[in-house]
Amino acid sequence: MKNSRQDDLDFLFHPNSVALVGITTAQTWHWTLTFLEGLLEIGFDRPLYLVNPKGGEIKGHKVYTSLRDVPGNVDYVIGLVNAQIAPRLVEECADKGVKAIHFCTAGFSETGEEERIKLENELAEIARKKGIRILGPNCMGIYCPQSRLSYSPEFPKESGPVGVISQSGGNSIFLVRQAALRGIRFSKVISYGNACDINESDLLEYLAKDADTKIIALYIEGIKDGKRFRRAMEEATKEKTVILLKGGATEGGARAAAGHTAALAGSKATWDALCKQLGIIKVSSIEEMIDVLVTLLFLPLLRGRNALLFGAGGGASVLIADEFESRGLKIPPIPPHIVAQIREFTPVAGNILRNPVDYSQAMTNTEGVIKTFDILSRWEGIDLLVIFVRTGQFTTSRISDTWVRNLLMTSFPVKQGFFPKPLAMVLEPSIMPEEAAAILAAIRGAIASELPVYFSFATAANAIDLVLTHAEKHSQKS
Amino acid sequence: MKNSRQDDLDFLFHPNSVALVGITTAQTWHWTLTFLEGLLEIGFDRPLYLVNPKGGEIKGHKVYTSLRDVPGNVDYVIGLVNAQIAPRLVEECADKGVKAIHFCTAGFSETGEEERIKLENELAEIARKKGIRILGPNCMGIYCPQSRLSYSPEFPKESGPVGVISQSGGNSIFLVRQAALRGIRFSKVISYGNACDINESDLLEYLAKDADTKIIALYIEGIKDGKRFRRAMEEATKEKTVILLKGGATEGGARAAAGHTAALAGSKATWDALCKQLGIIKVSSIEEMIDVLVTLLFLPLLRGRNALLFGAGGGASVLIADEFESRGLKIPPIPPHIVAQIREFTPVAGNILRNPVDYSQAMTNTEGVIKTFDILSRWEGIDLLVIFVRTGQFTTSRISDTWVRNLLMTSFPVKQGFFPKPLAMVLEPSIMPEEAAAILAAIRGAIASELPVYFSFATAANAIDLVLTHAEKHSQKS
Repeated sequence: MKNSRQDDLDFLFHPNSVALVGITTAQTWHWTLTFLEGLLEIGFDRPLYLVNPKGGEIKGHKVYTSLRDVPGNVDYVIGLVNAQIAPRLVEECADKGVKAIHFCTAGFSETGEEERIKLENELAEIARKKGIRILGPNCMGIYCPQSRLSYSPEFPKESGPVGVISQSGGNSIFLVRQAALRGIRFSKVISYGNACDINESDLLEYLAKDADTKIIALYIEGIKDGKRFRRAMEEATKEKTVILLKGGATEGGARAAAGHTAALAGSKATWDALCKQLGIIKVSSIEEMIDVLVTLLFLPLLRGRNALLFGAGGGASVLIADEFESRGLKIPPIPPHIVAQIREFTPVAGNILRNPVDYSQAMTNTEGVIKTFDILSRWEGIDLLVIFVRTGQFTTSRISDTWVRNLLMTSFPVKQGFFPKPLAMVLEPSIMPEEAAAILAAIRGAIASELPVYFSFATAANAIDLVLTHAEKHSQKS
Repeated sequence: MKNSRQDDLDFLFHPNSVALVGITTAQTWHWTLTFLEGLLEIGFDRPLYLVNPKGGEIKGHKVYTSLRDVPGNVDYVIGLVNAQIAPRLVEECADKGVKAIHFCTAGFSETGEEERIKLENELAEIARKKGIRILGPNCMGIYCPQSRLSYSPEFPKESGPVGVISQSGGNSIFLVRQAALRGIRFSKVISYGNACDINESDLLEYLAKDADTKIIALYIEGIKDGKRFRRAMEEATKEKTVILLKGGATEGGARAAAGHTAALAGSKATWDALCKQLGIIKVSSIEEMIDVLVTLLFLPLLRGRNALLFGAGGGASVLIADEFESRGLKIPPIPPHIVAQIREFTPVAGNILRNPVDYSQAMTNTEGVIKTFDILSRWEGIDLLVIFVRTGQFTTSRISDTWVRNLLMTSFPVKQGFFPKPLAMVLEPSIMPEEAAAILAAIRGAIASELPVYFSFATAANAIDLVLTHAEKHSQKS
């Protein structure tokens, strides 16, 4: 039964042809164009049809006046029509032999209006009768780089190991775009909205068995069937690492969820218990989810909690040690014999060989930095080496810029495994245009070296602690 | 006694002449130049002398070979010399009639080496004997825009109501530069380092009485005299709002503090108790300190905790409602009669009139937005109106850009007081170059309108809660 369900959904991710029904033909930019732009940009290479009763042309592509007029088969329809005519589109799709419809269209049960709830029920009922599956309504649909499906022209073209199930389209976009900046790539991302047919449990069962997906990240506002979802979660956590962001954890958030996807949020305690029992990593923001993904993907599993922090700034050193230690990591003092080794080639002035290490030599002496890293990372007292740059602490943007360039010039060629200990980077982005470009280049350089990059010490320590805690529990379990 | 001490310190902030002793004469850029650049850029308009035994010229300014050769009086010396010759500089300063020396020089008690501790004691002893006050060593000194003193060429030239006492130079720079971006300006900022003479209590007593300072922000690693500091804090909290960031709250942080400014950190419990008893707002990062300053300076004191959030994004609405409610604020539902008023001129599609309000009309209909704000802010159920833009949730940077421009075009002319309710903005910066400029322009526009701008919902809610909690306790006390 489970396998047949999974096979059922596989076609969603590999349609042989797609039609965008209800795409605008207006001259000005319109949100419905994002689907065309997404598919074109990612290089969708099977037949792609545009449909709008007005006909005409968009970007050189013929617009058919109805689905019926489309010459070839249509596997998958992206429905961009008005809610009221959605049921009629399902009928037309059935006549055309369409297998699945993703309704981006909003204005259904999420409005809370009785008539709109009825309309959504009608939609699901027709689809069920006609044997068509529906994704949505009120969602962004599918991003699957492997099969060249995308709903944004700015999503990465390459695939990766992260599968995402998100009730919200906007949150899925936020996740993909921000995570992409950090080097994370995705197998399949599904924004599933009101879930009148295909729901979170279907998708979770599918991704649990999907060979291309190693980690499953979920954004969920409410679930349709608690028992089935729990079973699906039990299976999923056996196969993969699962991260959950539960929207609507507060009264106000739950009300917003009801108005967003008509979801019933459920109590925070129930969700907390589920995550604890099944070893799901629970996060409370998309940013935190991304930090956990970065840690799982790019930081080797640490053998312990002792970190060495390496960068510049006396005051910064105090605060970042606090940030790390208050989040369950340890910043042990460097033993004298290690200090003595480094002192042999490092001047006293400006180079504080404590932990954190405040090392101005990094400004000028690349060789010295590499040598120091090497000595420090051989020290058995630590499990993790963290290189950091805090730009805002320098008196001018020019110094920040030099610091970033020099320290990172040192680290760019350094990949994970170059030193005997796992390596992470904390690179605080700057919004000041004078230094933003340099730090962004540094971030991109480190990510190109497949290093875990965090934007703050607090978020780095928090994510590393979450992953370590998860690993500790997981190994106890198995 | 207290008054005489305060009078003692006032000259620190208003020297009639300054000498930079030990400034580099090398051709390449050197950190000692930051003091010259800082003073020149802020327009220091009294005699400024450069001293280095090598003589010569820097940027067209004559370099004297010794302090003795300087033709005029010297009130204030910035000591950039090597630690070993620092005591000799104090002697020379005494001969020249100098009133105070700020020693930027490091390499004293913070090294933990006995000989260096002795050197610092010697420095303090000579200064005491000669009647010269010392600021530092191992610090950045004084930024006082009113009297044209600065240690960075990138600090604002205008004064403001915030006084800062920071044991760390780097942390004071981070604070001033990041806070300046948010519209915060300073009366006096003192980076005081190892505090071999002038210490945190001296400075706190001074700022408590300083008419130009309304809020005192402290970054402290350790204190010299607990009883005196407590008395100074008692006085300061009677006169001003005090915010404290205590560095070295953890074991690792405390070790870093000892190595940074030779400070003895003291227990976290003691500091927590002090803050609770005296109504000091305790923060745990510089970023949090800035958010509290923004709230104190630009957000009128709220009458309650009910907020209305206005922006775009269904999924974003759920998460931000959670962010606010989990931090002690409330996001109440909008009553039907208010919704009905707005519906009169607002289409159903794309405009979710819940709280948060998800209002795509903002993209095109400026008049409608202003009208909606007006109706919502007259509603007695809320104490605060928050406008937000979450750029990363849109499918392209171009849409983010349009959203930012259109919503903010609406809000730019809006100042605090334009609507009947206090107004705040949450504008998430972007590091993607394609949209970073637009959001930065929006941030700057809102700040130019003297609105409180926060970079995330979590930090906004946290700061607003801290300030409200402080105000509630403060009003109970008086």
